Amino acid sequence: MGKEKRVFLFGEIEPDKDLLGGKGASLATMTKIGLPVPPGFTITTKTCIEYLNNNNTFPDGLWQEVLQAIKKVEEKIGRKFGDPEFPLLVSVRSGASISMPGMMDTVLNVGLTKGSIEPFSKTIGNPKFVKDSFRRLIFMYADVVCGLETEKFSELLEEEKRKANVSHDFQLPESSLDNLIAQYLELFQNLYGKPFPEDSFLQLEMAVHAVFKSWNNKRAINYRRYEGIPDDIGTAVNIQSMVFGNFDDQSGTGVLFTRNPATGENEIYGEFLLQAQGEDVVAGIRTPSPISELKKIMPHIYDELQTYAKKLEGHYRDMQDVEFTVESGKLYILQTRSGKRTGTAAAKIAVDMVNENIISKEEAILRVSPRDVESSLFPSVVWANSKKFQYYDIADLEAKLHAHSLDEVVKKAPIKQATVIGEGLPAGPGAACGHAVFDSDLAEAIVKGEKSPPFEITQWRKEGDKKVPSLILIKKETSPEDFHGMVASSGIITMTGGLTSHAALVGRQIGKRVIVGASSSGMDLLGRKLRTRDGLVIDEGQVLSMEVFDEAYIFKEPLPIYTPTSLPSAMLTVLDWADEVAKIKVRTNADKEKDALVAVQFKAKGIGLARTEHQFFDALPLVQEMILAETKEERLEALNKMIDLQRDDFIKLFRVLHGLPVTIRLLDPPLHEFLPKELEIRERIWQQILNPEQTARNIKVLRKVLYYQESNPMLGLRGCRLGLLFPEIMEMQTRAIIEAALLIKKQGIEVYPEIMIPLVGFQEEFVLSREIVDSTAQKVFDEMGDTIDYKVGTMIEIPRAALTADEIAAGKLGADFFSFGTNDLHQMTLGFSRDDVGKFLPYYLENKIIKSDPFQTIDVDGAGKLMDICVTLGRQSAINVNKYLKVGICGEQGGDPESIDFCYRIGLDYVSCSPYRVPVARLAAAHSTLRNAEIDSKFLKQWPTPP
Amino acid sequence: MGKEKRVFLFGEIEPDKDLLGGKGASLATMTKIGLPVPPGFTITTKTCIEYLNNNNTFPDGLWQEVLQAIKKVEEKIGRKFGDPEFPLLVSVRSGASISMPGMMDTVLNVGLTKGSIEPFSKTIGNPKFVKDSFRRLIFMYADVVCGLETEKFSELLEEEKRKANVSHDFQLPESSLDNLIAQYLELFQNLYGKPFPEDSFLQLEMAVHAVFKSWNNKRAINYRRYEGIPDDIGTAVNIQSMVFGNFDDQSGTGVLFTRNPATGENEIYGEFLLQAQGEDVVAGIRTPSPISELKKIMPHIYDELQTYAKKLEGHYRDMQDVEFTVESGKLYILQTRSGKRTGTAAAKIAVDMVNENIISKEEAILRVSPRDVESSLFPSVVWANSKKFQYYDIADLEAKLHAHSLDEVVKKAPIKQATVIGEGLPAGPGAACGHAVFDSDLAEAIVKGEKSPPFEITQWRKEGDKKVPSLILIKKETSPEDFHGMVASSGIITMTGGLTSHAALVGRQIGKRVIVGASSSGMDLLGRKLRTRDGLVIDEGQVLSMEVFDEAYIFKEPLPIYTPTSLPSAMLTVLDWADEVAKIKVRTNADKEKDALVAVQFKAKGIGLARTEHQFFDALPLVQEMILAETKEERLEALNKMIDLQRDDFIKLFRVLHGLPVTIRLLDPPLHEFLPKELEIRERIWQQILNPEQTARNIKVLRKVLYYQESNPMLGLRGCRLGLLFPEIMEMQTRAIIEAALLIKKQGIEVYPEIMIPLVGFQEEFVLSREIVDSTAQKVFDEMGDTIDYKVGTMIEIPRAALTADEIAAGKLGADFFSFGTNDLHQMTLGFSRDDVGKFLPYYLENKIIKSDPFQTIDVDGAGKLMDICVTLGRQSAINVNKYLKVGICGEQGGDPESIDFCYRIGLDYVSCSPYRVPVARLAAAHSTLRNAEIDSKFLKQWPTPP
Repeated sequence: MGKEKRVFLFGEIEPDKDLLGGKGASLATMTKIGLPVPPGFTITTKTCIEYLNNNNTFPDGLWQEVLQAIKKVEEKIGRKFGDPEFPLLVSVRSGASISMPGMMDTVLNVGLTKGSIEPFSKTIGNPKFVKDSFRRLIFMYADVVCGLETEKFSELLEEEKRKANVSHDFQLPESSLDNLIAQYLELFQNLYGKPFPEDSFLQLEMAVHAVFKSWNNKRAINYRRYEGIPDDIGTAVNIQSMVFGNFDDQSGTGVLFTRNPATGENEIYGEFLLQAQGEDVVAGIRTPSPISELKKIMPHIYDELQTYAKKLEGHYRDMQDVEFTVESGKLYILQTRSGKRTGTAAAKIAVDMVNENIISKEEAILRVSPRDVESSLFPSVVWANSKKFQYYDIADLEAKLHAHSLDEVVKKAPIKQATVIGEGLPAGPGAACGHAVFDSDLAEAIVKGEKSPPFEITQWRKEGDKKVPSLILIKKETSPEDFHGMVASSGIITMTGGLTSHAALVGRQIGKRVIVGASSSGMDLLGRKLRTRDGLVIDEGQVLSMEVFDEAYIFKEPLPIYTPTSLPSAMLTVLDWADEVAKIKVRTNADKEKDALVAVQFKAKGIGLARTEHQFFDALPLVQEMILAETKEERLEALNKMIDLQRDDFIKLFRVLHGLPVTIRLLDPPLHEFLPKELEIRERIWQQILNPEQTARNIKVLRKVLYYQESNPMLGLRGCRLGLLFPEIMEMQTRAIIEAALLIKKQGIEVYPEIMIPLVGFQEEFVLSREIVDSTAQKVFDEMGDTIDYKVGTMIEIPRAALTADEIAAGKLGADFFSFGTNDLHQMTLGFSRDDVGKFLPYYLENKIIKSDPFQTIDVDGAGKLMDICVTLGRQSAINVNKYLKVGICGEQGGDPESIDFCYRIGLDYVSCSPYRVPVARLAAAHSTLRNAEIDSKFLKQWPTPP
Repeated sequence: MGKEKRVFLFGEIEPDKDLLGGKGASLATMTKIGLPVPPGFTITTKTCIEYLNNNNTFPDGLWQEVLQAIKKVEEKIGRKFGDPEFPLLVSVRSGASISMPGMMDTVLNVGLTKGSIEPFSKTIGNPKFVKDSFRRLIFMYADVVCGLETEKFSELLEEEKRKANVSHDFQLPESSLDNLIAQYLELFQNLYGKPFPEDSFLQLEMAVHAVFKSWNNKRAINYRRYEGIPDDIGTAVNIQSMVFGNFDDQSGTGVLFTRNPATGENEIYGEFLLQAQGEDVVAGIRTPSPISELKKIMPHIYDELQTYAKKLEGHYRDMQDVEFTVESGKLYILQTRSGKRTGTAAAKIAVDMVNENIISKEEAILRVSPRDVESSLFPSVVWANSKKFQYYDIADLEAKLHAHSLDEVVKKAPIKQATVIGEGLPAGPGAACGHAVFDSDLAEAIVKGEKSPPFEITQWRKEGDKKVPSLILIKKETSPEDFHGMVASSGIITMTGGLTSHAALVGRQIGKRVIVGASSSGMDLLGRKLRTRDGLVIDEGQVLSMEVFDEAYIFKEPLPIYTPTSLPSAMLTVLDWADEVAKIKVRTNADKEKDALVAVQFKAKGIGLARTEHQFFDALPLVQEMILAETKEERLEALNKMIDLQRDDFIKLFRVLHGLPVTIRLLDPPLHEFLPKELEIRERIWQQILNPEQTARNIKVLRKVLYYQESNPMLGLRGCRLGLLFPEIMEMQTRAIIEAALLIKKQGIEVYPEIMIPLVGFQEEFVLSREIVDSTAQKVFDEMGDTIDYKVGTMIEIPRAALTADEIAAGKLGADFFSFGTNDLHQMTLGFSRDDVGKFLPYYLENKIIKSDPFQTIDVDGAGKLMDICVTLGRQSAINVNKYLKVGICGEQGGDPESIDFCYRIGLDYVSCSPYRVPVARLAAAHSTLRNAEIDSKFLKQWPTPP
């Protein structure tokens, strides 16, 4: 058996992530494709496992290989490791094949010794740089290599800063550094029992040991256990020569994106600092210049960067985020990774790359995430550089926004710096700018104009056609009593609470920007003052901004909020491509014309759920009359008055959908929802007690309220149960639908009504309901002398319906379609009342008792299993009567990408979601089709092709 | 092909039900075994199908066969068909192989003609009998054979009765019969277009045609469709010579049971009337004599009857209900069928027949129905003849009841006649006698002695050690506001409502006798008077009786109610035999010592569900203190005060169960159940508003009430959700259980605690709960220096738990046992809130949308499917860790025989039911084992034998 090589110079072999780790493979790749990477080498992951199995000792020959590799690096860089005058310094870093953020152990400046400070300083003429580097080496070595407690080192540093009266490390004068080094070396010896090594090679050897061992420290083991990463893959060790951007006036450092990460424009984009190290950029003290300036100062570097950017894009076939350093006029590329970008940019880059023949359409679709679609519709701050919270100040250009594209505006807008004063959990996405308010009553009073605000209003938001003050409601936590204040505000920030707290759940539901748990970032609410971690105090009325996407930030200054009125054009292109590949259709949940219009504009393929409740709430006096009716005749009279309202509504929907199917659900909620609350009517009885007529009616109402009261209304008299007990309601609704359809047909518009029976749990419920619907439809056909095709189906929301889907779909009187009402299905399958779940769901999510909020994402293992059973039973049964059973979903999970993927995998024909989720769902539908290419669509395999 | 025979004399061939029909086969059998059956013959069912397929014409040769058969009958009986002087008369009846009650077409007296009236009357010297027979023949012939509307015939009859001033048909004088015959014959000719046939053979031919055709009348077709009886089996036609018990003074008629149907004593039992037809007995005008009297009057007939009774029992291997007629000193047996009997009699007969070597033990077990067990424990009237509401008046003998057996008492008791004044639906089983009361408040006031009753109390019932007035509450319908009145009464009768109305559901729950829907029998409630169909008026205070089993009757008179104190000894024997064969065990649901004692006496094999709620309700102030606690410390303080109460309770249960397993469910209900209702506490706040201390507390309580209020408490914060949020409750309960077990163990008593976690839906819920239980148990073991085996399992009541049973049973921390909480499982699977279902379940049951009340009988197709999935997933998963997963049921359906059968078929180890259901369940368990012998037990096949 030949001896296996354990150490590879960057680029020496094909990049192999499993062997070289992620970082090692990336450095190897860049070296391989000819980028100027500071030379170095990688010790393989396998070696780590050998080492650990070998009782923490280097395998035979490893150290020789390392020494040979160091020699090669010395040759390339032209300096020697351990040379006191101009030493080769190296970084030593871990890097496993699977990314383990925060687990990376790093020692920089390895090779520097006390003895080399003087000569090295002389060589480069920058003693402060050398001393600072050595100070850092001692600290990192003590921490990572020797495992010493670093608190005492930090204390010494803080004391020197106090003495020198400076607030940042890099501001320490040389003399302080001298003191610090002396104290560090003494402390090191005291704690470790041995002096800090003056031998550069010993430093290196110890650092490699440390990285190997770090694989088995407690933190890493826990992390792997938590993430399900195997224990036996080990970490590689990357040893790389260090380059210094602060070396001379021909040195510098910078970052660049190969395309604009805000807009996606195809131009390199970024910033740099002359005579600086990477850390200086991060500290944010000196302001970097835009990368374009480099064209003037170092044209060859700029040209090189452009070349390398294309090369990297060509290789990785994606936009890259690149770190570079120039040392004495020589460019080094330190790191590259796929660049973060806005949703708008993601779409533009994907479409451009298809046009540039870099990627295929399918790849382009997969490059844009549903989150990207979502974010490009939400209000946002337009970021120049999201990592540093620089934004385009489009405020002055706002007027032009409608005339020009965002890209153009952004080009002209000045870039400004925002200040983060707090963070939290991202509970409701979007951005907002408004006045801080600490009280729900005050918020409502200000917005309703009931109270002159105690501060000058400078921020406004639109509400319908009105302009109202824009407020950010800040509370310790919210409760149902804050609802009016939440409605009045643009954004909501709470100190406590998680992603399923009241503020999160309700705020998201009413479409507000919400940040919860801000106290975790050190914020604190003291009476009517918000105090930040940095001691800043925000008073009521002060203007703040917030942006919430994958992260949630609170800013000190007013930021311009950009609210898109439509999707960017590249996004529209991506969505059209998505439609071409998607094998699961996207419909919308829309009750009203206005919503239907939005959805059709977003290319929904029909209405998956038109609720008819709102028509009843709109005609509340009539509905109450119907409920109070003592006889069927009285009830019919009230219903007859309602039919015109219903018919008109259906006509509007059919007209907007213009030939696309419209699924209309018959009345679902329990009757007591249309009656006043018990306390309310009791109160009213006392108030009107002297009016005998009114009193008689009030008592009649109270009797009905008490009669229809239920212990668990979710499981009560509603849906088809109501429709069967009061068939006249079902008849009236069917009549309105069929009449509307025939009237629309007369206008030459195609119409496909699908009548959905709610809350079916038993075959006989469906059959009896269908008989009422069919016979009513036939009556209308006879009366109007015309017919129309319509379907009758049911919502699957009761577990029993899923379990007996074969019966419900059986025979001629079986359902034509199913639509999963996943809200209720989850309530019953999991035994979670959606209205009450707030008391324990946060605890359950935190403690991982449940993976995700089942009212957002389908519970695949539980409710999902029922759905799968249902589809199989229902389709098989329908085949017996030569019918293809159409199956969709209309619960709120229908707009959730993970749930859409599941729906596709179990063979659903469509998902239906709220109008603004339609684009997100269209992309998710394509993703699920592409990602599950191997299973193809279940229905295509098991059942005949849908018609 | 030889010609197939279509007509068979009784006894000519082996009785074959498919060929001869049920009635034909029974007549054939009796003839075969030598009983004196009036001779006759059967036309086969096949012939009927031939006839119908042959366009309603007799197949070739059929008529010839009939004529030959008639000849043989003439020879046997010694009279000629069509002979005017002393004609052979025959009955013509249909009879299919499957019983179709109410579908039987019958023509009696066929062969009688107008011309034979005179000579025949002369021969037998009884013209009235002959004329009445002829009148009946015309009517039946017009109806059954000619399909004429019989209303006009009935009108003529009524008019003659009016004219003659009599109320019963048989009271008509001869002259009226003459008039009637003349009018009937005229009407017949007018309606039919032809005169009534004077040809006896034509009468016979037409009657056979009619019976054949009746197979395809609408009523019969609908009935078959409804009952799923095939259309192509046809009906046989039975033609039998008629015999007359009113022929002379050596004639008579009677019925007998081969054993006593009330007690099961092995002696023939029945009654007879001299010179009478069967109808006279039914009309109830003349009082029949006990069969024993026959011994003196016609000893040879009595002897013959005894011989035949044994013969029939020997053949049918069961107690028979026999009809006989004596014509001129010659005995004829007309009919035999399995005799109806009380539960006590059923058991006694079954046991006796085993001892007499007539049937096997297994047959004996199957001869007794679960209903028999049930009825032998409920209060009842001891019937002499339940068909005629004759009862043993044991009232005077009551005192002796404890000294003697029921059998002995019954022998000495006089037989009396009860009068049925109303019927209804049997909602709550048992019997009661009490004063009619029409008002719940009055009922309560009388029983509590708060009001001197407006009538003299003569009826009493026991309540604990007290004697309180026995009342029967009679209402149009009941509502929750009648609850106190229902509790106060012995029985409840409502005019409206079905088996799931408020009165039915609640009345049954609190163990009352309940009859609902009495208005269907013509009863009506007018103010404070109950009016019956017959115009009888019952005033408040009047004493009524009621008995409710499979039927529900209301009686005018006070009847003696016999309340068994234990099961009859024969029943105990049957139950012991049942235990020998049953492969599914029976446990009990018992929370308190008293219930446990009853169950153990009834030989329950353990406790399947001991709820701990009552312990919390018993310690309400402490529980409220715990709920109001703001800190964990305060909460712990309250809990520590509760632990002694809990431990004491568990010690009692363990002691009673003495080595049998005890499943204890940890706290299940939501906390708001332990707090006052919102309206109540609001009221209290106003009342105590001037007391600042009390007000502060009240407001604290209101805050908690509002906080814990839930929209759907069924799906809210309860069960393990509560236990995980407040682990200290789970810890306290576990500690109480384990401490109790160790203390009992110290007393040398075996103890098997099984701790049940309620409302688990997720694996992680179970694992976390189990960790709390296990670590607490370990702590107690350490403290007490002793250990005990205990199991930790879960209730399966959330659909998701059933769907993920494999996860919940997985691994070392998986459940040791499952127990189906079928009440909640049905609520969630069907989406039925048990408290609210009363509004639509009656409609659903009436309209057959649902087969049976799912809270009584498992919904096999829906919830049952989930249970089956659960057992399979759970057991398979447990096998992976070499564990046998014990599975039981503790919902109320666990005491329902149909549900027990289902539980056995899906492989459950035990059912658990209320203490008084235990004997019923033990028998049902044996039945299901015997009936499903072919599938054996699922777990025995698929899974290793339970340890």
